[in-house]
Amino acid sequence: MQKDKEYNEWYLDIVEKAALSDKRYPIKGMNVWTPYGWKIMRHIDAYIRRELDSTGHDEVSFPLLIPETEFKKEKEHIKGFDSEVYWVTHAGLNELDVRLILRPTSETAMYPMFSLWVRSHQDLPLKIYQIVNTFRYETKQTRPFIRVREIHFFESHTCHDTEEDAQCQIEEDLVILSKVMEKLCLPYYLLRRTEWDKFPGAYYTVGIDTVMPNHRTLQLGSVHHYRTNFSVPYDITYEDESGEHRYVHQTTFGMSERLLGAVISVHGDDKGLILPPAVAPFEAVIIPIFSKKNTEEVSSEAEKVRTVLGDAGIRVKLDDRDDRPGSKFYDWEIKGVPLRLEIGGRDIENKVVSFARRDNGEKGAISRESLVPGVRLILEEIMKDMSEKAKRFQNASVVDLASADDIPKEEDDGASERVYRFGWCGCEECGHRFEDEHDIKILGTPYIHEDFRGRCIICGKDVDTAAYAARTM
Amino acid sequence: MQKDKEYNEWYLDIVEKAALSDKRYPIKGMNVWTPYGWKIMRHIDAYIRRELDSTGHDEVSFPLLIPETEFKKEKEHIKGFDSEVYWVTHAGLNELDVRLILRPTSETAMYPMFSLWVRSHQDLPLKIYQIVNTFRYETKQTRPFIRVREIHFFESHTCHDTEEDAQCQIEEDLVILSKVMEKLCLPYYLLRRTEWDKFPGAYYTVGIDTVMPNHRTLQLGSVHHYRTNFSVPYDITYEDESGEHRYVHQTTFGMSERLLGAVISVHGDDKGLILPPAVAPFEAVIIPIFSKKNTEEVSSEAEKVRTVLGDAGIRVKLDDRDDRPGSKFYDWEIKGVPLRLEIGGRDIENKVVSFARRDNGEKGAISRESLVPGVRLILEEIMKDMSEKAKRFQNASVVDLASADDIPKEEDDGASERVYRFGWCGCEECGHRFEDEHDIKILGTPYIHEDFRGRCIICGKDVDTAAYAARTM
Repeated sequence: MQKDKEYNEWYLDIVEKAALSDKRYPIKGMNVWTPYGWKIMRHIDAYIRRELDSTGHDEVSFPLLIPETEFKKEKEHIKGFDSEVYWVTHAGLNELDVRLILRPTSETAMYPMFSLWVRSHQDLPLKIYQIVNTFRYETKQTRPFIRVREIHFFESHTCHDTEEDAQCQIEEDLVILSKVMEKLCLPYYLLRRTEWDKFPGAYYTVGIDTVMPNHRTLQLGSVHHYRTNFSVPYDITYEDESGEHRYVHQTTFGMSERLLGAVISVHGDDKGLILPPAVAPFEAVIIPIFSKKNTEEVSSEAEKVRTVLGDAGIRVKLDDRDDRPGSKFYDWEIKGVPLRLEIGGRDIENKVVSFARRDNGEKGAISRESLVPGVRLILEEIMKDMSEKAKRFQNASVVDLASADDIPKEEDDGASERVYRFGWCGCEECGHRFEDEHDIKILGTPYIHEDFRGRCIICGKDVDTAAYAARTM
Repeated sequence: MQKDKEYNEWYLDIVEKAALSDKRYPIKGMNVWTPYGWKIMRHIDAYIRRELDSTGHDEVSFPLLIPETEFKKEKEHIKGFDSEVYWVTHAGLNELDVRLILRPTSETAMYPMFSLWVRSHQDLPLKIYQIVNTFRYETKQTRPFIRVREIHFFESHTCHDTEEDAQCQIEEDLVILSKVMEKLCLPYYLLRRTEWDKFPGAYYTVGIDTVMPNHRTLQLGSVHHYRTNFSVPYDITYEDESGEHRYVHQTTFGMSERLLGAVISVHGDDKGLILPPAVAPFEAVIIPIFSKKNTEEVSSEAEKVRTVLGDAGIRVKLDDRDDRPGSKFYDWEIKGVPLRLEIGGRDIENKVVSFARRDNGEKGAISRESLVPGVRLILEEIMKDMSEKAKRFQNASVVDLASADDIPKEEDDGASERVYRFGWCGCEECGHRFEDEHDIKILGTPYIHEDFRGRCIICGKDVDTAAYAARTM
């Protein structure tokens, strides 16, 4: 299938053919993580854990269920989630006195405990995270990894003595983010969301968006500054050095299995998945190329190559199934294994291992003697090339708008699906007008300063900040 | 607190003081995994994963929610769980057409999918596992890790073409079990449960029991042989080599966070936790012993020792807090760190590092030159000694009964709390009579043959199998 022309169908087809998840589970939008998809996700989780652990976050695991009474304490928050939570109303044969919700996110589970944990300024900063399943009753059409009703995600939550320290935490989160995204070879925008689109209860929200093959954007996660918006209703206070009780300043950072949805969408091609080596279950697959007379020799060499690479810590698979090489090539291309190694009689003679890169199809040979550094080098080049290619695509998706009239009409076969950059005065009235007239969502303004001079696309006022807008997945 | 005399209070006290979990979460029996407890559990999970991965099991992750319609397909199973599941009846503002349950275990979530996955004998054996949270509406008194309403556990599920192959799987499970339990230094019994106590829907159940300090037994997990009891209602069939459709034979194996409850209970002492090195967040803690004139020298040596051990892959913590050594000793004793290393002026002079073992209090010095092998050796000895001590306690708990009259009366201050071994003819009538008259549960008969000759303790018939019975946690 052609990714460019029929992305939606292509995506579902790849998820199924590469056996990443099974959506035949008898509840819509709740899919089974099958082994190959789960392995990739666990690699992603491992990088997240590594970065969070090394920046002093402690991993915890909170209960899934939240009493309705706790859930309702922050007014904006409950308004934002009321219509999309699952309710547990009965246990065994009894009706519960207090109904329980399946967490859609864990603020209201964690903050009653934070109120017990934080006593003095010495308990701060408090930095914790968890990697768990979370639930949202999606009414829109579901799609594996991108819009599901049981979501695998991580969330970090922090408490600080001052707003400045909370602000520093957000800067740290963005460094963590950049390191994780580097492993996934994914570019992204950091956009400060509009007031009407921020997280319910947040002071401000920075959305993490990436551009999909249909030029719509996908929000991968977000970073929130809460100020004291939650610490007041949940009574999370500390005693400062002068003995006064003060409310803590809070932040959160979270990303979901959409990361995998983006990896599939951004990197894949018409033949199947293309996995970044850092998260591929197998970085390389070895295919022995037998002829009648050399079966044993080729087998033994393939086995040796497997051992050499495996011992060096490279995740490698030897495909010794009794099948034609062409058919094996096809299978591993669908699965997106970054590097294919072929070993035939001529390779053994020439003391080389032949290779083919999954990302760009490039072929060549690595000297057998320097196999390990040779493979490592190619895997690094693949990472670099995949990142650059994705970045080029993202950049090419952006259209600078001088006037709203420049937006192509919707009927132009997807031509209107772009990321638009334009001047916006920042006022709600202009923002809503733009969104309503063009059915395009304002994603926000760049969190990291971008030079810009222009006029608000609606009211014409001079502005020095651009807004980004796009249709979203 | 004294573990021997007041085990129940001691247990709760240790869980709180060592900060393993927080039970102040506003739902009874649903506790927060705090960082130290979660780290230990993740080490346990890592061993389970390693053993399951290396025996060809694939990790998956199934949805948490199960439609009532699927849950009700196996009649015995639903009867067994009906009164202890949580029901999701509403989503957002809507009442659901089909109610959903929070998985109490995953047979009914997985088997509709197995029915799609298994087609031919080439798909067999199918061996998968997951490590997830599961839910039971416990009505008995809850206790951290031992009886909770949200349970962290692993479950492996397999499908086989023949009953014999399923039987071999159970043998493999028992090898996996033995390797995991070795890391936890925990002895256990393998007892084939009575017909009236087996898992709802199973052909037979092998319980994995360990003896707690109050001489009651705790079931840590179980292995089940299902034969075709589930594959028939869930229609899991394969085409054999002759083209005929046959039902698969199934097994499961699962253990829960009770493993941690047993580690705490079996190994701990009046001073706190004693952790097996294999699962301790820190295998060793370094305490610098400063005097006025050598602060810098001791600091620098402690830092060096940390680096040497850390580089060797030993999990080590340097406690350089500004506090008295005695107070640090106390803290790390509660936390159960297996090995304490002390570095003072005299140690530096003598080119040694002093040590104290947490398990038996033994003290000594390791030559600085052979620090890494020295620490490794002591950690291994600790593992060995902890296993042996636990095994001795378990053995000493067993009382051979010639007659039921030999059971001490309940009022004898806990003296009746023992593991009893006696002849049992195996019939339900005698079994129920024993259980009813003595309020002691028959745990079952040894899964691995034990030589025994005697008479049924109830009817007097000659028997060559012993039964084990105990009060349970």
